[in-house]
Amino acid sequence: MSKKFVNEVDETVDDALQGLVLSNSDIKFHQKCERVIHRTEMNADSKVSLIAGGGSGHEPYSAGYVGKGLLTAAVAGNIFASPPSRNVQAALEATKGNAGAILFVINYTGDRLNFGLAAERFNASGGNAKVVTISDDVAIDNPNSRVGRRGLAGAILTIKIAGAMAEQGKKLDEIVSASENVVKSLGTLGVSLYPGSLPGKDREKGLPEDQIEVGLGIHGEPGKSRGPFTNAKKIVTDLMETLKSKLGMKTGEQFVVLVNNLGGVSQIEMSIVNGEVLNWLKHQKMTVKRFYSGIYMTSLDGHGISVTVLRATDTMIECLDYPSSAAGWIPPLSPFGSTRGEASKRSNVSDVKGSGARGNRQIIQKCLESVVTAMIDSKNRLNQLDAVAGDGDCGNTFAEAAKAIREIQKELNVDQPQTLFKQLSIIFEQTVGGTSGALYALMLSAAAVCFSEICSIGTCVEALDRANQAVQKYGGARVGDRTMIDALNAAVESLQESMKKKDNLDLIRMCEDAVRASEQAAEATAHQKAAVGRASYTSAEAQTEPDAGATAISTWLRAILKSFTENFKKC
Amino acid sequence: MSKKFVNEVDETVDDALQGLVLSNSDIKFHQKCERVIHRTEMNADSKVSLIAGGGSGHEPYSAGYVGKGLLTAAVAGNIFASPPSRNVQAALEATKGNAGAILFVINYTGDRLNFGLAAERFNASGGNAKVVTISDDVAIDNPNSRVGRRGLAGAILTIKIAGAMAEQGKKLDEIVSASENVVKSLGTLGVSLYPGSLPGKDREKGLPEDQIEVGLGIHGEPGKSRGPFTNAKKIVTDLMETLKSKLGMKTGEQFVVLVNNLGGVSQIEMSIVNGEVLNWLKHQKMTVKRFYSGIYMTSLDGHGISVTVLRATDTMIECLDYPSSAAGWIPPLSPFGSTRGEASKRSNVSDVKGSGARGNRQIIQKCLESVVTAMIDSKNRLNQLDAVAGDGDCGNTFAEAAKAIREIQKELNVDQPQTLFKQLSIIFEQTVGGTSGALYALMLSAAAVCFSEICSIGTCVEALDRANQAVQKYGGARVGDRTMIDALNAAVESLQESMKKKDNLDLIRMCEDAVRASEQAAEATAHQKAAVGRASYTSAEAQTEPDAGATAISTWLRAILKSFTENFKKC
Repeated sequence: MSKKFVNEVDETVDDALQGLVLSNSDIKFHQKCERVIHRTEMNADSKVSLIAGGGSGHEPYSAGYVGKGLLTAAVAGNIFASPPSRNVQAALEATKGNAGAILFVINYTGDRLNFGLAAERFNASGGNAKVVTISDDVAIDNPNSRVGRRGLAGAILTIKIAGAMAEQGKKLDEIVSASENVVKSLGTLGVSLYPGSLPGKDREKGLPEDQIEVGLGIHGEPGKSRGPFTNAKKIVTDLMETLKSKLGMKTGEQFVVLVNNLGGVSQIEMSIVNGEVLNWLKHQKMTVKRFYSGIYMTSLDGHGISVTVLRATDTMIECLDYPSSAAGWIPPLSPFGSTRGEASKRSNVSDVKGSGARGNRQIIQKCLESVVTAMIDSKNRLNQLDAVAGDGDCGNTFAEAAKAIREIQKELNVDQPQTLFKQLSIIFEQTVGGTSGALYALMLSAAAVCFSEICSIGTCVEALDRANQAVQKYGGARVGDRTMIDALNAAVESLQESMKKKDNLDLIRMCEDAVRASEQAAEATAHQKAAVGRASYTSAEAQTEPDAGATAISTWLRAILKSFTENFKKC
Repeated sequence: MSKKFVNEVDETVDDALQGLVLSNSDIKFHQKCERVIHRTEMNADSKVSLIAGGGSGHEPYSAGYVGKGLLTAAVAGNIFASPPSRNVQAALEATKGNAGAILFVINYTGDRLNFGLAAERFNASGGNAKVVTISDDVAIDNPNSRVGRRGLAGAILTIKIAGAMAEQGKKLDEIVSASENVVKSLGTLGVSLYPGSLPGKDREKGLPEDQIEVGLGIHGEPGKSRGPFTNAKKIVTDLMETLKSKLGMKTGEQFVVLVNNLGGVSQIEMSIVNGEVLNWLKHQKMTVKRFYSGIYMTSLDGHGISVTVLRATDTMIECLDYPSSAAGWIPPLSPFGSTRGEASKRSNVSDVKGSGARGNRQIIQKCLESVVTAMIDSKNRLNQLDAVAGDGDCGNTFAEAAKAIREIQKELNVDQPQTLFKQLSIIFEQTVGGTSGALYALMLSAAAVCFSEICSIGTCVEALDRANQAVQKYGGARVGDRTMIDALNAAVESLQESMKKKDNLDLIRMCEDAVRASEQAAEATAHQKAAVGRASYTSAEAQTEPDAGATAISTWLRAILKSFTENFKKC
């Protein structure tokens, strides 16, 4: 059973309605029926009452659309189950007036029956209610089918237009006929990567990881067909092409478009989907009169979307634009903004002018290659260490940097360490970003300064020291804080100690000592408490592994040593 | 790897920004840096530039908040990674102006580094940027920690308040100090049932099915601690109790509350959470001044929530209520009958797009102020007149309208009469309501039409005539029916008569004649019999005083004349 923010599973719908009403003073519970929500203020003699409803699990539809300029009342069934006819009748009675009422029914058999029955009874006892059935799903394409198309998010545009007309005091028959026109001008198609999960149940696992449902309803049911999971562009293009062919959409036509989040699609994905939909329309030379995108009609937390297209008249658009105070109503966006310019991704690495002392080209190249390889190889290990305390992407960060370095290898100046360090600094700043990117950019900038005049063992040690100091200054970390500083500082101190024995300097030995000191310091971070950095926000108990940043330092130091030992004598 | 609506994983952020910009014509890409989004129109010399940013994956934060009344620009890093400092600098350069800039930094080391460095470099080259660090996470409670609290959804309230101040033309230092005050008055705590999942990766499975993370950031990292998974009520109660103790919240205090969906919580759950939060506050006898709930700052599709509490001053609340056109901004709900209406009405007025001929700004402003004052001053007199024949609230109605106009004065377009009249029409329809509200809304709408091309004395007379005709058409009243028409029609006829004397037109004289004609007609209603309108339901014997509606007309006509005579020569 998946975790959810609910109390008793049986009371999910009631608790949600309670929350909705508590957070909206414009609506209230029906005095006698706690599954009916209606406006606090109604003018049923001068304004037609608009009532929608159906199973719950589609929030904000329909109770979230009760409010000025939209619905007068909503009837909530159990999750994915039509409400009983008597509750629909209760809504009709509560909103009864001389102007009459319209029941909006999303076309499912249960809803058609229960709403239809309620209308008949209500009318038999002197009421005046009409039924408008919404059936916009183009996936159901058999025109001879007695059930007709399913009702989907096209309902939102339908009730919005009717809501404006009712608010303006339009007559019952006029609103009914306008609503029916809207339904005829609508088409919707949905696709889903994962179905939503019901409270008290696990997510359905029927859909393979490499497939998607195409042409689905809003109850987590299978689609009309399944297709391969490709990517956003392909999925959206296929969906729009189907809509185009079913609705006969043509170049030059104008449409209102609504992209609906079935509940579980992240915002970053929704932006990508919006972009693909708008791009497709642009390439088709179709005009977007209004563009809606958001959570309008859900399938709980379903990871899917639907696109609704409406051939809207000017009058329909005026009604869509009419203000509404309903809590769930999301106004349109205003496409089209600009397309991404030719703002280049080109690195500025080759702009760095050569400067500073010359070094041994071969040693430098071998060292660089060795570090790059080590950074790629340690990706998973570093990610694992980071996952314990941070967001698990430390390995990715360095692997990305390494890949970037490889890509522009030919532009790098391996003759002059000062220039090379400046170039590497730019790569870390631009390609890597994040805290690690900033700190490494800073380190490399600080180190570069040392190679103006000479390139020697002494300047290398000095450069590492400067890097160490720069990170401490800007990052705020000190030795013992469970960060990269622990490993870096240990190496610097070891090198400085060795340098004192000037008369008896074994270069390889000196480097080995420094790398070992750095590795020991990195290991020791496993038992330290974080004061700054990634791990400082996480409970100390979660931290039993060495710090990822410290481990990264000793990893590339070890890689330099390796290349050094292998190549030093040869060069 | 979980399925997602993305294309190349590496291009997720770029594709999402492209989608955002395509769906918003108010924002665009930085010419040279495709990770920087800024407003299409900026006034950097008169309005402080507000820039926020950080890693992506928190949408709509921060690029979704670029827009009027909120941010000027946003800088997007890779997912959960701080943007490089040079991109922040690009945003500063693109929005540079005399008014200065503020960088809002969510308190994470990488962001502090990159934004800090950018500000330093920008200021070193002659810029004027300040940094405001947002740190509202009460889970990080060590006051001696060098890193301080993390930044969470409190950022939304901070940038909203700063955004209103910048839009109103407040100075840099004032906005910085107000923002810092907001940060000090904030606290946020988050809980999570499942972390979000990164594109190209599987959802982390570190958290056992019977546990939740408490006190977490927005990067899917572990929380400060773990607790048992119980139910919505218990989870919310524990969260609110922690906030209460950390912030010293007391019975009787007033708060602004924001419930943030980390991205993957279904709508039905969010309603339950809202209900529990509001119930807890109600039981604690704490007042909720504003209640926000929705997707404000995500951790991709994280199944978690955070609650932010702000001890808001009246000035802060005014700024929160100030309208914003940013795509990601979600206005507050209206719990327990508190004041949601104002906020939503305001935004409708500012939604009216500028159109029509330009008029003399000073004259229009003076006239409006004069009418507003007269309407407030005549409240008692109009109430008395109305009490005889109607329900005695005619004065209240106009005083309310006048107050509503004053409250949103800054949003009114006093350069273009057509726009102004449309805006005033909305105020009458929404704020005033009732028959008078509807009729005045109608009059103003009808009058607006005349100012498309020219704004002259002629069009003013025509506008009054159109208003007169519209009220007669829709209200059904004619001259002599003892309604506002009597006073309105008299003024129109007098003006039309004067206009015929084209060669010898004395403007002030012409207006004086019209106002006097109107006043006489209003007085004359005292002896007329009502056929329609308020007085038609009352016995004729009770009617010995002039009609309140007619008197109201001559009152505001007199006010316009007064302002005209006083200011016409000066302007």
